[in-house]
Amino acid sequence: MHARFPLMLVALLALPVSINDAPMRGFTAASARAERDWERRFLAIPDPDSLREAMRVLSARPHHLGSARDSANAVWIRDRIRGWGLQAEIETFHVLFPTPLQRVVELIGPRRFAARLREPAIKQDPSTAQQAEQLPTYNAYSPDGDVTAPLVYVNYGVPEDYVRLERMGISVKGAIVIARYGRSWRGIKPKVAAEHGAVGCLIYSDPEDDGYHVGDTYPGGPFRPPEGVQRGSVLDMPQYPGDPLTPGVGATEGAKRLERAQATTIPKIPVQPLSSADAEPLLAAIRGRPVPAGWAGGLPITYHVGPGPARVHLRLRFDWKLVPVYDVITRIPGAERPDEWVVRGNHHDAWVNGAEDPISGAVAVLEEARAYGRLLEQGWKPRRTIVLALWDGEEPVLLGSTEWVEAHADELRRKAVAYLNTDGNGRGRLNADGAPALARVLSEVGRDVTDPETNLSVYKRSHLGEIASAHNPDQRRQARERGDLLIDPMGSGSDYTAFYHHLGIPSLNLGFGGEGGGGVYHSIYDTFHWFTTFSDTSFVYGRALAQTVGLLTMRLAGAEVLPYEFGRLSDRVEGNLKEVQDLAKTVRDSIIEQNRELEESTFVAMNDPRLPMVPPAREDVPPFLNFAPLQNAAARLKSATSRFETAYAARPDSGGLDQTAADRLNALLLRAEHALAPPAGLPGRPWYAQLISAPGRYTGYGAKTMPGVREAIEAKRWGEAEAQSAVLGRALEAEAAVLDTASTLLEQMRKK
Amino acid sequence: MHARFPLMLVALLALPVSINDAPMRGFTAASARAERDWERRFLAIPDPDSLREAMRVLSARPHHLGSARDSANAVWIRDRIRGWGLQAEIETFHVLFPTPLQRVVELIGPRRFAARLREPAIKQDPSTAQQAEQLPTYNAYSPDGDVTAPLVYVNYGVPEDYVRLERMGISVKGAIVIARYGRSWRGIKPKVAAEHGAVGCLIYSDPEDDGYHVGDTYPGGPFRPPEGVQRGSVLDMPQYPGDPLTPGVGATEGAKRLERAQATTIPKIPVQPLSSADAEPLLAAIRGRPVPAGWAGGLPITYHVGPGPARVHLRLRFDWKLVPVYDVITRIPGAERPDEWVVRGNHHDAWVNGAEDPISGAVAVLEEARAYGRLLEQGWKPRRTIVLALWDGEEPVLLGSTEWVEAHADELRRKAVAYLNTDGNGRGRLNADGAPALARVLSEVGRDVTDPETNLSVYKRSHLGEIASAHNPDQRRQARERGDLLIDPMGSGSDYTAFYHHLGIPSLNLGFGGEGGGGVYHSIYDTFHWFTTFSDTSFVYGRALAQTVGLLTMRLAGAEVLPYEFGRLSDRVEGNLKEVQDLAKTVRDSIIEQNRELEESTFVAMNDPRLPMVPPAREDVPPFLNFAPLQNAAARLKSATSRFETAYAARPDSGGLDQTAADRLNALLLRAEHALAPPAGLPGRPWYAQLISAPGRYTGYGAKTMPGVREAIEAKRWGEAEAQSAVLGRALEAEAAVLDTASTLLEQMRKK
Repeated sequence: MHARFPLMLVALLALPVSINDAPMRGFTAASARAERDWERRFLAIPDPDSLREAMRVLSARPHHLGSARDSANAVWIRDRIRGWGLQAEIETFHVLFPTPLQRVVELIGPRRFAARLREPAIKQDPSTAQQAEQLPTYNAYSPDGDVTAPLVYVNYGVPEDYVRLERMGISVKGAIVIARYGRSWRGIKPKVAAEHGAVGCLIYSDPEDDGYHVGDTYPGGPFRPPEGVQRGSVLDMPQYPGDPLTPGVGATEGAKRLERAQATTIPKIPVQPLSSADAEPLLAAIRGRPVPAGWAGGLPITYHVGPGPARVHLRLRFDWKLVPVYDVITRIPGAERPDEWVVRGNHHDAWVNGAEDPISGAVAVLEEARAYGRLLEQGWKPRRTIVLALWDGEEPVLLGSTEWVEAHADELRRKAVAYLNTDGNGRGRLNADGAPALARVLSEVGRDVTDPETNLSVYKRSHLGEIASAHNPDQRRQARERGDLLIDPMGSGSDYTAFYHHLGIPSLNLGFGGEGGGGVYHSIYDTFHWFTTFSDTSFVYGRALAQTVGLLTMRLAGAEVLPYEFGRLSDRVEGNLKEVQDLAKTVRDSIIEQNRELEESTFVAMNDPRLPMVPPAREDVPPFLNFAPLQNAAARLKSATSRFETAYAARPDSGGLDQTAADRLNALLLRAEHALAPPAGLPGRPWYAQLISAPGRYTGYGAKTMPGVREAIEAKRWGEAEAQSAVLGRALEAEAAVLDTASTLLEQMRKK
Repeated sequence: MHARFPLMLVALLALPVSINDAPMRGFTAASARAERDWERRFLAIPDPDSLREAMRVLSARPHHLGSARDSANAVWIRDRIRGWGLQAEIETFHVLFPTPLQRVVELIGPRRFAARLREPAIKQDPSTAQQAEQLPTYNAYSPDGDVTAPLVYVNYGVPEDYVRLERMGISVKGAIVIARYGRSWRGIKPKVAAEHGAVGCLIYSDPEDDGYHVGDTYPGGPFRPPEGVQRGSVLDMPQYPGDPLTPGVGATEGAKRLERAQATTIPKIPVQPLSSADAEPLLAAIRGRPVPAGWAGGLPITYHVGPGPARVHLRLRFDWKLVPVYDVITRIPGAERPDEWVVRGNHHDAWVNGAEDPISGAVAVLEEARAYGRLLEQGWKPRRTIVLALWDGEEPVLLGSTEWVEAHADELRRKAVAYLNTDGNGRGRLNADGAPALARVLSEVGRDVTDPETNLSVYKRSHLGEIASAHNPDQRRQARERGDLLIDPMGSGSDYTAFYHHLGIPSLNLGFGGEGGGGVYHSIYDTFHWFTTFSDTSFVYGRALAQTVGLLTMRLAGAEVLPYEFGRLSDRVEGNLKEVQDLAKTVRDSIIEQNRELEESTFVAMNDPRLPMVPPAREDVPPFLNFAPLQNAAARLKSATSRFETAYAARPDSGGLDQTAADRLNALLLRAEHALAPPAGLPGRPWYAQLISAPGRYTGYGAKTMPGVREAIEAKRWGEAEAQSAVLGRALEAEAAVLDTASTLLEQMRKK
């Protein structure tokens, strides 16, 4: 077929990726040669058949937190890793995890309809028929409740949707809202709804977002069938993740626990997820005002906002029990620097069978472990300790990783040099978010792994992807000049959160994706059959993931000097600083403009009396903000990073560093990034200490960069914006000071 | 209700619009006073009840071109106008107008389905049950045809969609395409399809565009019911409108006619419109590649591109007959300048009952006629001749207006000072497109008419709307500073086309809109019941339209000096010149970038082997273009317009101009804008002479500004772009020369 021609051409033209002799950051020429030898052996080990077999086993039955199969999987993982000669242990915590006792969603007027609240089995896929072991469709940590109220459709249920409702003169006070999934962490939806006075919240999967509107539905295609439901947690994750009863401390057996009523991350109103098939009769029964542009989804109805006349009865009751969390922790002790740890993890629990989420990522960790077992047999001695973690209880709210990090916080602060996370895998280009300090080492590693579809290197495919998807010529130029892969800012939603946001440990979240897509997320349809029919069917991307993250782990564990590079951090700070300054200007200008339009009667002119709009209130014009301390700090950081880079490049190579110098340098570098996560944390949510990025308070998944400053501007708290700008400035100055000390050390070495 | 509060407030605060003593362009202080007196009387006459009654009569039965009711309506209109003491005549032309003999659209594989091709009557609306008189659903001027072929979905079927298809490696050669309505004149769809080798074309109304996705459907709301069909012409209007057999000349009884096979505006392949209900089974049967992002519509299916396996049989046969066109032409002879004509028109024929299109506009013309009759009785003597036209045969392709203009071209070139068009009416803000030279007089008139919903002036509501909908602060600032209403560039699709594009007569197309919306366009559901339930139900906007256009007509007919103002033209030329220069740069930059990405293997990196894309071909980098002649001409025009404005402002006021001076000045001004439409016309379509804007060759409705230059750049014909740039430059220089002559005249008057 014509369209395949270019690909064949590529196979002929593209140079095979080879382990080359390019410099390896953190290694001397000599140590790099030894490292390359081990890496060459490593890359040959990961095997698609082995990945497929592990997925088959781990996704064979539903294995949510607290289930028999969850603990059986943990034991199977531990024993399998032990079988490869590694030290693996199960570490247990005890966490609050409610499961449903009763779920009722019924339309009681103007006509009656009882939501089915279940996903039917699909003949072609026997895994979907394991009803007895499947968790029912529900939102974990919804409170118990029994409410009857008129229904209001709130689009995605994010704050801007409520601004729009207010302009339409529509209140959700006393109503049950129905929101569609998407555009935020699902826990944001009941939080914002409750803040506006709603008494219940339904969240449904609209076909426009991951169903038939996007592509063919399962089993005919990878997208969500009309009966598919997205389960998921609705805790206020951006406040703190982990066990709601033990914020900040490990949920060990004897840990001091809050009363449930004190747990501020639990939503205030009952929440239940729905399929689009269950949502359609409810939405069709809403009348009143038609939705504004952009709010209509993909169902074949006219969407209305309400309120009512649709009235819904929502009754939910849960079993609020403590359950054990089984983290499987594997340690490969470092030969020279045992107290410097490279931690790599992926969770093993799922909402149901979870072939994609999380098993497609978990099997890569297993494959890395298998490969390390082989290398160790052959005499490989990693310089640093490698810790491989298969977390439990990620789905309810990052329980396994958060409790483990909180339990080992002091040790991790002293020892952890990086945390490398995955949470599933797909096909396409490598994506990375997290600490820019790891951009260089990731890019070097990415040059040594071959992309299975294009035969380009993983680095090259991803880098060209950045160029192709740049939003403007300036971004494109930056991508071309950067050389390193772009590391996106970290939001939340996976197990890196405690490492990165709570402790400030340089972290990366990695995965291949961008091709194929799908809509079986958190449903009974995320199965081995689905994955092997529609996703990485031949497990070549599973192999690429194990190769990429495995090599990155080895590189970090093997380097003489920690291979952090800080120029990309300084670039990001510079970019984000410009953004928050622009944001302050935009907010200011738009308030001035809005006030002017109020004076000019513009809102009167735009008003359709049959669909009247409430004009916005007049607002005070914001002051200009003092960004100078932050600007000065950003400039100081920039010069510190470039001084460090010069000193680092000129460091003595032959024979490497002497032990004392290496100790001092690594110790300095290990804590450099901690400066970005000072103990006071973000305003109102001190658990989140990292000041460079955080999950937005009202986005949850999505990252806010410079969150202290940015969210204060967004909330129009000008004093706080200036104060946070100074706080961030001090953090940047602190990091710059560490880098200057390290530079001095490197400069002295050179003089010797 | 809370949301209504601001409106009540407005009613209290807004100053009532009053006929004030602001200067009136073209009048001396004395003549303005007399004019204001007549205008005050005029404004009191238009009456909602009279408008309602006229709509009731004219939309009572289907009245398409060639029907009994069409000619009966023409006679009724003429007699009614005569009843008000005016001279009204029916002028007849004879045009080609095919109507269906046979229509078959059937899916013959993989399953069978025969499209119903009819719109069911709706109980609440008796007009919809007049089946015997309704034209069947069809696309006028589709050729006869009988084809069976696989189906390909082509989104809107505009050129960019075919670029996308090509990138996907999909050809429509030998296929029947199915396109959705929208984003172009419907005649573009079969034209582009045929250019790409398709053998048939179906066009359907997707619910995302004007059906249930946008709002409640008729009879529950104003939008298109699933069975609603958009009839309409598919001639290549951007080549030339009017009778396909008599391009450039009036289709009088004895006119020389082309053979049908020579008529190049008739499409090459058969075309049939469908309802979404008829389209759904066809679209659902298409498989193959899923559609790219943005192509899926609002039906509850997964859209695929094909080709096939859906196979369709399309059989169409038409009665290719000549029918009479009945234009109703009313003349109110000018008292002082009978050979200067202000022409005002709206068509009277419809596709079916056409309450909105065209009757809601036609009744305003009648109301204006009624008012003029009254004023004449009271002794009003318009200085210039007023010609009121109710055109026939607009729907098939602007037949009545085009043939009339072609028949009277020489006289119109000598006499017509403006053409003022409407083509239906709604609720909301006044919109205007056409000649910037009329912006000032329209804005002055708009200040004297009250918007019925807000009590702001029509001018103010519209002007504030421009501010509110500005795309950026710069546009907003321009809107605020402009003072005059923004006149959008003219595309095509209504009766102004022959006046403005063919002869270069300053024209405006006017209407109220922006509120309510609807989806009954060209269906049996565009009825009196629909209009009086969902649109301008109390006919207050009908009154506002008659007031606005009527006043504008009086002002143009009454002014001592033609009230053209040329600064807005110069502004537009300046803006458009920047746009075409930016376009040339963008095209050049994007070719350079694309070639670079081809070298870098970016297209390889972005390719998903399961949905492969064909990389674009390498292209030659375009040369830099010489815009200097156009830049110089634009600068010359700018200084000529500002010199004219100065001279005009300083002209002697007391007692007005003497007759000779006024004659010379008006004669100069009358032909000033003709300079923009030199006889050579646009490349490849000389009928379109206007060089400032034209319907795009591949947009049809949508205007292309500086079309000769812009379309050459878009088509990458660099030599033609430079040549057209020079041609346009000469036209601007010619207009500047006329203005300079007029300025000299004004300056001499002052010196006297």
